[in-house]
Amino acid sequence: MYLGTPGEIVDERVTLRHGAGGRASHDLVESVFVRELRNPMLEPLADSALLAAGRRQLAFTTDSYVVSPLFFRGGDIGELAVNGTINNLAMSGARPAALSAGFIVEEGFPVADLKRIAASMACASLRAGVPIATGDTKVVESGKADGLYVNTSGVGCVEHRLSLGPLAVRPGDQVIVSGPIGDHGVAVMAARGDLELEPEVRSDTAPLHTLVSKLLRATDGVRCLRDPTRGGVATVLSDLADAAEVGVTIVQSQIPVRPEVIRSCETLGLDPLYAANEGKLIAIVSPDAADTALAALRSHPLGREAAVIAKVTPHPPGRVTLLTAGASRAIEMLAGAPMPRIC
Amino acid sequence: MYLGTPGEIVDERVTLRHGAGGRASHDLVESVFVRELRNPMLEPLADSALLAAGRRQLAFTTDSYVVSPLFFRGGDIGELAVNGTINNLAMSGARPAALSAGFIVEEGFPVADLKRIAASMACASLRAGVPIATGDTKVVESGKADGLYVNTSGVGCVEHRLSLGPLAVRPGDQVIVSGPIGDHGVAVMAARGDLELEPEVRSDTAPLHTLVSKLLRATDGVRCLRDPTRGGVATVLSDLADAAEVGVTIVQSQIPVRPEVIRSCETLGLDPLYAANEGKLIAIVSPDAADTALAALRSHPLGREAAVIAKVTPHPPGRVTLLTAGASRAIEMLAGAPMPRIC
Repeated sequence: MYLGTPGEIVDERVTLRHGAGGRASHDLVESVFVRELRNPMLEPLADSALLAAGRRQLAFTTDSYVVSPLFFRGGDIGELAVNGTINNLAMSGARPAALSAGFIVEEGFPVADLKRIAASMACASLRAGVPIATGDTKVVESGKADGLYVNTSGVGCVEHRLSLGPLAVRPGDQVIVSGPIGDHGVAVMAARGDLELEPEVRSDTAPLHTLVSKLLRATDGVRCLRDPTRGGVATVLSDLADAAEVGVTIVQSQIPVRPEVIRSCETLGLDPLYAANEGKLIAIVSPDAADTALAALRSHPLGREAAVIAKVTPHPPGRVTLLTAGASRAIEMLAGAPMPRIC
Repeated sequence: MYLGTPGEIVDERVTLRHGAGGRASHDLVESVFVRELRNPMLEPLADSALLAAGRRQLAFTTDSYVVSPLFFRGGDIGELAVNGTINNLAMSGARPAALSAGFIVEEGFPVADLKRIAASMACASLRAGVPIATGDTKVVESGKADGLYVNTSGVGCVEHRLSLGPLAVRPGDQVIVSGPIGDHGVAVMAARGDLELEPEVRSDTAPLHTLVSKLLRATDGVRCLRDPTRGGVATVLSDLADAAEVGVTIVQSQIPVRPEVIRSCETLGLDPLYAANEGKLIAIVSPDAADTALAALRSHPLGREAAVIAKVTPHPPGRVTLLTAGASRAIEMLAGAPMPRIC
């Protein structure tokens, strides 16, 4: 079977695998959008693009939300859309300034649900201190959507002088996660009601900009920030190892995961490392900055359970390895679609 | 029947009328989004929000595109999404700096069509000199979308010191349209193939930022700029009359419309004044600036057929009147949904 060169799409039609945030998503984006739209701002494929505005640097980002169901324990599509786009900006170290909101509504959608979601967005926007400054609403016929899709874009001001990103990552760097992983993925799967999952798991959806701000004020040893949403921690680290041409060794025993998330993931046949998070960040920091960074994160309510979970190694480049009790195994970028429409 | 106060939605479910850009859209946006998300940036409900960035002013806008079909004579959803968001920025007098692109793709969508649309966006982006700086792709199950929906958001720099908007409009001002109206609406309806429409009508999709720039350099007498997309010229002028608390008198014989558009609109039972445009602008200018504004617009390829079509009057506030041969009639904001999913 001809698999194509890396980043080349061989499928004739788009499948759900292309939406899961893993290898297939990567290939679709590379071979269709990056190839056609090639330009220096787009190519880093970071969470936000950076634009010059006079002597300032602006971050600009977009995300569409198609989560199913629209309401789940701990949040809904509206709160997710506000926090998710704030987090995209935060991962570039930007202070979020404003969001846009674009709604695609299916004919027949209850106005009461739309009001509930708008109220939830208003609440998330107030809590984060980031206004929704502009919006758009479209309606499509019954059967041409799934209730509601929301796009949020955002602009922010970069307020540091670091070059954050995979290219700043060096062997020896430490990998910190800001708290227990997999909550959002499990909460959404539980809300689908098709499996007997732990009902008490809540989405971790939260705006991370003040956590990032605290971290960047504490140390200038931060190399790269990522939020492990679709595809989870494993996919983010695979992607980083690939882009930075380094190895990453994860120590399984150091990964914070709630017991109920582990149990639910077992029911799902899913590794929590691949489960989506909506209120966690991965920080790659220089070896000498690790303690300061950890202390800064832990001093913030959203980072109390922060932990060093991995180390950057020179070899093998592009490879993520998981050290378990007495063994090690390779971690791949998410290949299938175990959790479509998770955000 | 209880109709509610103006701007209040009485329906329990969203209908296609709420997506047509007229009165029902207005009420949905007012009673759900504006009420919940109330903040000073959102409330002007202009095409773009204005944000302060140091001594600069930024414009920020978003638009989702759900046009059906995806390809039509003179353009496709990709070109429309690029030009449409550029035009939102241009209407606030901003120089567009960058766009984002968010794709919601239905499972089974042909990869070749996605490539064709991405190429079309690349071409429109290059032609306009506005890069697509960041993007996002989501995939939903078959039957949960209609091929492809595209959101484009945009940021730009405001490069004038005018306060453009309905509040600047005064009785005596002249209303200019930059060229013949209704082409886009008719081209999309023709592409649906369900009526015998003039096959030669092409969408007028075009980026208007250089036309606006030429106009603003020529005169400081510009009061307000709008692009008459969904709902057409009639809806934009009704909206303006409402917001500015002025009357607007349109002289029918002065409206530029192609004969083939008039014939197609007759077949559709539609007034060209309500047909969508994607490459035209409405400029409200002070009486003494009208000649200069008209000359500036006509000196640009996209404004060669610009014409003064209406005048702002003190009475009756909120009312648009159409003067036809020997008669006059009131023009309402589009009430129904004669052309859903036109953009």
